[in-house]
Amino acid sequence: MTSIHAQSEASLWRDLAPLMEPKSVAVIGASQRAPAAGVVREPRGNRVIRNLRNFNYPGRIVAVNPKYSEVMDCPCYPDLASIPEPPDCVVLAVPNRHVPDLLESAAAAGVRAGVVFSAGFAEIGVEGKQRQARLEALSKEHDFLICGPNCYGVLNVFRRAPLFASLIPQGFLAGPVALVSQSGGLSTTIANALMLNRHVGLSHIVSCGNQAGVTVEEYLNYFVEDENTGVVAAFVEGFKQPTKLMAVARKAMAHNKPLIILKGGRSDVSQRAAATHSGSLAGTAEVIDAAFRQGGIVHVRSLNELIDTVSLFSCDTFVKRYNGGRRIGVLSGSGGECTLVSDAAMNVGLEVPELSEDSKARLPEVLPDFGNLNNPLDGTGAMYDDDKIFPRLLQALIDDANIDIVTVNLEANDPRPKELKSGTRFSRAIANAAAPANKPIAIFSSIVGGPVDPDILLPLRTAGVPLMEGAECAMSALRHLADYHQFRKSWQASRQKEAVAVLSHPKLPAGILPAEAAFRLLDSFGIPVVPTLLACNAEDAATTSERIGFPVALKVESAQITHKSDVGGVALNLASPSEVRATFTQIKNQVTTQNPSAEIAGIVVQRMAPEGIEMILGIKRDPLFGPVIVCGFGGILVEILKDVAIGIPPVSREQAHSLLTGLRGWPLLTGIRGKPPADVDALCDAIVKVSNLALSLGEQLLALDINPLVVHENNHGVAAVDALVQIG
Amino acid sequence: MTSIHAQSEASLWRDLAPLMEPKSVAVIGASQRAPAAGVVREPRGNRVIRNLRNFNYPGRIVAVNPKYSEVMDCPCYPDLASIPEPPDCVVLAVPNRHVPDLLESAAAAGVRAGVVFSAGFAEIGVEGKQRQARLEALSKEHDFLICGPNCYGVLNVFRRAPLFASLIPQGFLAGPVALVSQSGGLSTTIANALMLNRHVGLSHIVSCGNQAGVTVEEYLNYFVEDENTGVVAAFVEGFKQPTKLMAVARKAMAHNKPLIILKGGRSDVSQRAAATHSGSLAGTAEVIDAAFRQGGIVHVRSLNELIDTVSLFSCDTFVKRYNGGRRIGVLSGSGGECTLVSDAAMNVGLEVPELSEDSKARLPEVLPDFGNLNNPLDGTGAMYDDDKIFPRLLQALIDDANIDIVTVNLEANDPRPKELKSGTRFSRAIANAAAPANKPIAIFSSIVGGPVDPDILLPLRTAGVPLMEGAECAMSALRHLADYHQFRKSWQASRQKEAVAVLSHPKLPAGILPAEAAFRLLDSFGIPVVPTLLACNAEDAATTSERIGFPVALKVESAQITHKSDVGGVALNLASPSEVRATFTQIKNQVTTQNPSAEIAGIVVQRMAPEGIEMILGIKRDPLFGPVIVCGFGGILVEILKDVAIGIPPVSREQAHSLLTGLRGWPLLTGIRGKPPADVDALCDAIVKVSNLALSLGEQLLALDINPLVVHENNHGVAAVDALVQIG
Repeated sequence: MTSIHAQSEASLWRDLAPLMEPKSVAVIGASQRAPAAGVVREPRGNRVIRNLRNFNYPGRIVAVNPKYSEVMDCPCYPDLASIPEPPDCVVLAVPNRHVPDLLESAAAAGVRAGVVFSAGFAEIGVEGKQRQARLEALSKEHDFLICGPNCYGVLNVFRRAPLFASLIPQGFLAGPVALVSQSGGLSTTIANALMLNRHVGLSHIVSCGNQAGVTVEEYLNYFVEDENTGVVAAFVEGFKQPTKLMAVARKAMAHNKPLIILKGGRSDVSQRAAATHSGSLAGTAEVIDAAFRQGGIVHVRSLNELIDTVSLFSCDTFVKRYNGGRRIGVLSGSGGECTLVSDAAMNVGLEVPELSEDSKARLPEVLPDFGNLNNPLDGTGAMYDDDKIFPRLLQALIDDANIDIVTVNLEANDPRPKELKSGTRFSRAIANAAAPANKPIAIFSSIVGGPVDPDILLPLRTAGVPLMEGAECAMSALRHLADYHQFRKSWQASRQKEAVAVLSHPKLPAGILPAEAAFRLLDSFGIPVVPTLLACNAEDAATTSERIGFPVALKVESAQITHKSDVGGVALNLASPSEVRATFTQIKNQVTTQNPSAEIAGIVVQRMAPEGIEMILGIKRDPLFGPVIVCGFGGILVEILKDVAIGIPPVSREQAHSLLTGLRGWPLLTGIRGKPPADVDALCDAIVKVSNLALSLGEQLLALDINPLVVHENNHGVAAVDALVQIG
Repeated sequence: MTSIHAQSEASLWRDLAPLMEPKSVAVIGASQRAPAAGVVREPRGNRVIRNLRNFNYPGRIVAVNPKYSEVMDCPCYPDLASIPEPPDCVVLAVPNRHVPDLLESAAAAGVRAGVVFSAGFAEIGVEGKQRQARLEALSKEHDFLICGPNCYGVLNVFRRAPLFASLIPQGFLAGPVALVSQSGGLSTTIANALMLNRHVGLSHIVSCGNQAGVTVEEYLNYFVEDENTGVVAAFVEGFKQPTKLMAVARKAMAHNKPLIILKGGRSDVSQRAAATHSGSLAGTAEVIDAAFRQGGIVHVRSLNELIDTVSLFSCDTFVKRYNGGRRIGVLSGSGGECTLVSDAAMNVGLEVPELSEDSKARLPEVLPDFGNLNNPLDGTGAMYDDDKIFPRLLQALIDDANIDIVTVNLEANDPRPKELKSGTRFSRAIANAAAPANKPIAIFSSIVGGPVDPDILLPLRTAGVPLMEGAECAMSALRHLADYHQFRKSWQASRQKEAVAVLSHPKLPAGILPAEAAFRLLDSFGIPVVPTLLACNAEDAATTSERIGFPVALKVESAQITHKSDVGGVALNLASPSEVRATFTQIKNQVTTQNPSAEIAGIVVQRMAPEGIEMILGIKRDPLFGPVIVCGFGGILVEILKDVAIGIPPVSREQAHSLLTGLRGWPLLTGIRGKPPADVDALCDAIVKVSNLALSLGEQLLALDINPLVVHENNHGVAAVDALVQIG
């Protein structure tokens, strides 16, 4: 037996410097042909050189093109081998059919990385898949770093290295956010929205397309280690390396660099779309959800939620002032918005508490005629008419001890002409109040959309006040921040206990394990089972029954029979040796009559378990993540409502507990309808031990299904009553 | 007994013309004082006059102010009585304390309507509530129409009558959408977003505030009857007249004028906020949901969903070309967006079918090098580089027989400088294709937010192609359209059967009805019950048992005992007369010992019902809607998951059926785990009869709780086993 999980995390990662921080670049596919009238049609190779110039790239740029000796003032060579010193990275702006040969010759010439823009690889038919296979082999066998194919490439802002297919004008906003998106189009859409609609700066943009070489997980790791990056954002269609994903989540948590990820491909249709587009396996939605939850990854559900969550998390002043609480104060000039934002806050589990008694006493002193003393605080038309009112209301929320986060409803995106708007006045007041405040302040508009006024946006962002659009997105983003804060706190507390030492298990015979062997396996991992033994004849059964205690159940054991009760192979509640003896014979006869060909290995004798809450606990194989723990309530909750919790091994006791509290049926375990609370501790323990079993058995375990696992009342433990173990 | 529901619907409604189409207006609160530097601070009265001028109001405008003989070139009178001919409507831009007196004098002077801007009524303390009570009395007793208080007033675009507190510049976009919002601020926010971000024109804007006089329901009715209005949008915090709401929903359906409503105030906090702000009762969220569903009201969940749903429904060409199907085709230049929009479509239940075989065969003919033949159709970078590709792909979707609605992902809100954008090119191609198309086409952006490019928006809207922002909102809006279409179709089909004739029921004694009386009541409405009779002595019980058939249950009957089994007052499964006799005596003794003070009216004999699915069916009183039907499954589904369907009486058989299919536990009725399907017909019938009971008993019925109603297998009916009826 060898200890698993001993692999050093450092050995997981490659050095991405030749791709992300190249000291020299060769561009293949740039030409002297003058750019066409529409800028969009300039060849991609030329666009890359233009981008490098716009960013003042400090490294060496060469072009490769047999037709010219120079392109856009760069030296141009007929082929890669002719370049005097091999560049770190080659950018391929050429049709897909040329790509594999070119990359292979680049690797041979000593180049260490390549960016491939063109589509037509794993996302299309057989030919494309073969092309992609050559890239994957090159990446693996020669440790050659490939970004793409089917992508826009990489842009390292602080290293001034934009190996990027889409034209990026000067005046790019640098900042702490690193972005990776498989999709090229969305990478720029997200980046532009962050920079121009939120004034959020970027450290990197990576569009990684089909991930034939470097994977999303590797970029995430690079960002987490990057000194210029504080927040990592991603749009992902399919992960390729789930182990690395979980590892980078742990590392991000240790560095306090939040990973904020939008994962597409939840539906069958979108999985079809993702497979077409990027050739990735999208992974089961529920398992991805579970992995994100377990890793403390901020899981956003739409592009706008991504943008506003990033807007919030990347606002340093805001985050530093945040105390982890979930009580928000709201100031608005619209009573209607007070109602809507309250709904939105409740929806995501934030609190909108009443104002403190202190505020209620002090507000009338500074605003004698102002009637409203509520949270949300409705400034009414009065705050538009009288310049004194707004700052005093805002200060009251900042000073209120009941409030953790102050939010102000401000239409920074009013589409009307400037002279009709009043937002600038309020934004000045907010910026003034924010400077000396010790509490985080954010603004949100009622509606999402419309031109964001830079005169409002920039001064506020500079003052540490992030903008979000729409109450729903704003409340979701704040909830993510609160969740992240809470996760990190409990992660820090539980860090010492984290070490999981699991020994690998010897190989088991393939197929469905016989009941006795299955129960022995569970027992060997410390999972409580009802006593279960195989008897070969009636006398043996009677003796065994006496040993394990009455009442007992008898269940026929035969590899050919799956539905035992359908063939009369099960008898319950047998109370005496004579009853057991008679029933043994009866079962054997009945089964033989109905299934003459079935080989009967014997009959299992099992002590009847006392009643309790029937749950299911098991292990399933996810196509991406491999073995995952599945837990839920038996009966209609799982059958009709699919109320199932999923954990990615290793699962700790704390994680097991939070899996259970996440079940809709959770109140059943806490004791409802006058019933005593169930033994949740023992249940958590069983989940942890099933997780250990999953890790120990590794790939040989195809499925485990304990159904039911009976959970008794508190201090009375749990017991597996039926178990199916499938070995591959 | 008198027939209810005979009231003519016409008699429900008042004529709002003096308020909505006034021939003359008096403004109180305009002044000669020059407007201050900031336009926002101009007195509201002056703003109203300015608005009337901007709109070329054709009626007479006078001002009322004892200080001047004219204001802004209008004749000015010292008081209302001095105006030679009383105006139709008076606009009050004065502090709240003057409002009641002024309105009462206006009514006395023959004025028929008033608009009250000021706050400080029911939304604040005692004094405000008294002020509002005077307005409500005036409205009721003198049929005086009041808009507000605490509002921005009314704006009738086609009558050029803006009695509106917020300044509305010239160039207002007239169109088919009427908007009512209690909130003033949100009324203009919504209207501006519709006009400027969606190019959707408006017929009216009403901000009705506290609804002291005219209610939201009355404005909705006015809009439904208005010839210039085709679509009605509303943001409502609290309804006041649920009967009128249901009536206007029916009328809107008959006129095919969709009601699209955002209802705030779902949470406790927001109900607190709404009560503060507009003094309305927000109503139970679940009952509102049920009422909207039953009335075919389009129920949107956010301001952006409101805006995009209105954008879609108000696009005449789109709606006319729509066939009612749910199969969407998507064209995008971003594979990532193809994934996201597929997720969004699946989330709301739209289909994204594969392309037809015909398309798959024909596309390669027009685009030989184009590999992707999927839906969503990923145009890839190719469609940016080659002008021929996009129109051909679009045409393929328009021609595809598998697709009902064509959507195009187009960034009309790209925040970058003009020279970097390529949207205009695609928008031209869409406009060209839309003209001859026989299929509805819509566009949506990936991200919500940023400046909407008028060069893209206007030509497309004119070509009948509506814009929506974000895949989520776009898919929700399309789903609403499909649902509305389907609702209206089945509403048209079932229209003939709609007549409900219910007789009012004689008064019952107050309190909890004795069991026998409760069962008799159910029986008299045709609701199946298990035979249940009261016996006064043991012999009587035995005889009764023989008559109704064994086995039977005995249950003590006493007004003082609620939990019968707790005091030994229940016995089940008695199989013979002798057992019944003995048990009768035993129960009586036991109950008397435990509850010496309880008066025992007798013991109820009830035939044991055969087993079946246990449901609950009853009537609860909602604070706003009054009696509502409640139906769900017994056990954990109702206790833990609150899985309950709500219907507003009268409930038809079709509606009863859709209540049941909406339950999460619905599969239990269709037969799962090898069980036969349940008698859903009989269950629907019972729901309709409970609805009749609710209408007949009217206000005297406080609550009805049939628990359990046992539902037997198909063709075996249902039976009420326990019933609690509370009369007030």
